[in-house]
Amino acid sequence: MEDLSRLCVHTITTRPWSLAEAVEHYARAGVRGVTVWRDVFETVSPKAARRMLADAGLSIVSLCRGGFFPAADAEGRRKSIDDNLRALDQAAEMGAPLVVLVCGAVPGLPLAEARRQIADGIAAVLPAAEARSLRLSVEPLHPMYAADRSAINTLAQANDVVERLNHPNLGVTVDVYHLWWDPDLEQQIARAGRRIFSFHVSDWRVPTRDLLSDRGLPGEGCIPVRQIRSRVEAAGFDGFVEVEIFSDHYWAMDQRFFLDRIIASARAHV
Amino acid sequence: MEDLSRLCVHTITTRPWSLAEAVEHYARAGVRGVTVWRDVFETVSPKAARRMLADAGLSIVSLCRGGFFPAADAEGRRKSIDDNLRALDQAAEMGAPLVVLVCGAVPGLPLAEARRQIADGIAAVLPAAEARSLRLSVEPLHPMYAADRSAINTLAQANDVVERLNHPNLGVTVDVYHLWWDPDLEQQIARAGRRIFSFHVSDWRVPTRDLLSDRGLPGEGCIPVRQIRSRVEAAGFDGFVEVEIFSDHYWAMDQRFFLDRIIASARAHV
Repeated sequence: MEDLSRLCVHTITTRPWSLAEAVEHYARAGVRGVTVWRDVFETVSPKAARRMLADAGLSIVSLCRGGFFPAADAEGRRKSIDDNLRALDQAAEMGAPLVVLVCGAVPGLPLAEARRQIADGIAAVLPAAEARSLRLSVEPLHPMYAADRSAINTLAQANDVVERLNHPNLGVTVDVYHLWWDPDLEQQIARAGRRIFSFHVSDWRVPTRDLLSDRGLPGEGCIPVRQIRSRVEAAGFDGFVEVEIFSDHYWAMDQRFFLDRIIASARAHV
Repeated sequence: MEDLSRLCVHTITTRPWSLAEAVEHYARAGVRGVTVWRDVFETVSPKAARRMLADAGLSIVSLCRGGFFPAADAEGRRKSIDDNLRALDQAAEMGAPLVVLVCGAVPGLPLAEARRQIADGIAAVLPAAEARSLRLSVEPLHPMYAADRSAINTLAQANDVVERLNHPNLGVTVDVYHLWWDPDLEQQIARAGRRIFSFHVSDWRVPTRDLLSDRGLPGEGCIPVRQIRSRVEAAGFDGFVEVEIFSDHYWAMDQRFFLDRIIASARAHV
């Protein structure tokens, strides 16, 4: 993407930076959108975050993340709903239009049961999302996270849940890192259509040294990021392209140089 | 499984042991089948291996592994075919009835192209397998190996290839580690039916510390091994249950204690 007006960066991508630092550097580098991770609220209130972004002319793209609905018992599931309602309040206060859902899984809980609890959890928080004019998106996670992070591991499953609950405020997030391997991806992107509420990019490194924090910049791995982007846009998506990278390697680097590489990678490979 | 008469162990599972050591200890522990990995041929000929197993009263279940068909150029694909033919010769010499195929992938080669090359490669070696009365099985690998080990990542894809090539000597291998997360697994096991030629077990640890060598023993993780086994058998499979574990943790242990744990795990959790 030559034009950076639709480029968004996740605050987690430059984790060593405070929100204030991230906002300052993103704006200076030409990034126009920010997806805020909830850990920033440990030091900045949602309202203060909203002001910071507005003052810098940055759009708030989404809040990451709600979800984690399944639990071993009813008490755990109730706590999860409470936490999701808190996330909705935070999103509303900071003016985020979308809350991304990482749906959750509990080691040992059968996946079919986790999937039922996920659908129930989403249904339980949808009215609160609608009341706040917020959208929710189901983000399928790579199957290597099925044990403990999400029992929704393909776009087909996310589409199934979204179609079943059939609510205008509910859609999906397409993240190339989680979905690139899926032989059914092209079809499922078309099926999701305008229910694609957000789009995340990074790359799959070879070798991948860590299951959680070894993502690459687009162009550094084997994901056809540009091809997937064109499919998502052909399906009707016209929102931000969000760079979401967890990387011990990049977090150890001066984040200003890393941001330069993010920009160069977006221009050349997204 | 209380009855160990269908328990098989892969030589790679107890990698520190020579084939002679493995055969001696497996037989003493009541293991009845062995799947041999080709690295043993660095020190033992297929014929010598055959004798060792026969003398100990052990069945040879399969040879691991052929495959790795995709390559960047025609020369690479030709070499891969040659290597697969060598594997077939080794299997025939050692009396292995089955060669398991890890189908391959090349970082940067589009997955759709890799999948075409895989189908072509299997088609190219099937006549040689038939001539040697050998069976071949397509083993789908977990999506986290899509970049560099196999572009066949679901049982649905394996079934597709096998049905398309439609040859009595071609089937699938079901490995719980690769497939447990798949929402479509039950259906695809039923679809594979008697084309399930082999069945591998291990477990998915939480957390998984390494993408390659951190598998657990059945019971140590979150895979419903016994449930998947019952589905595979309901589909008509009645062969060996094969313990295939790559684990830096277990390879560092005295392999006699590890083998005791394999037996205990098989009895309690398979």
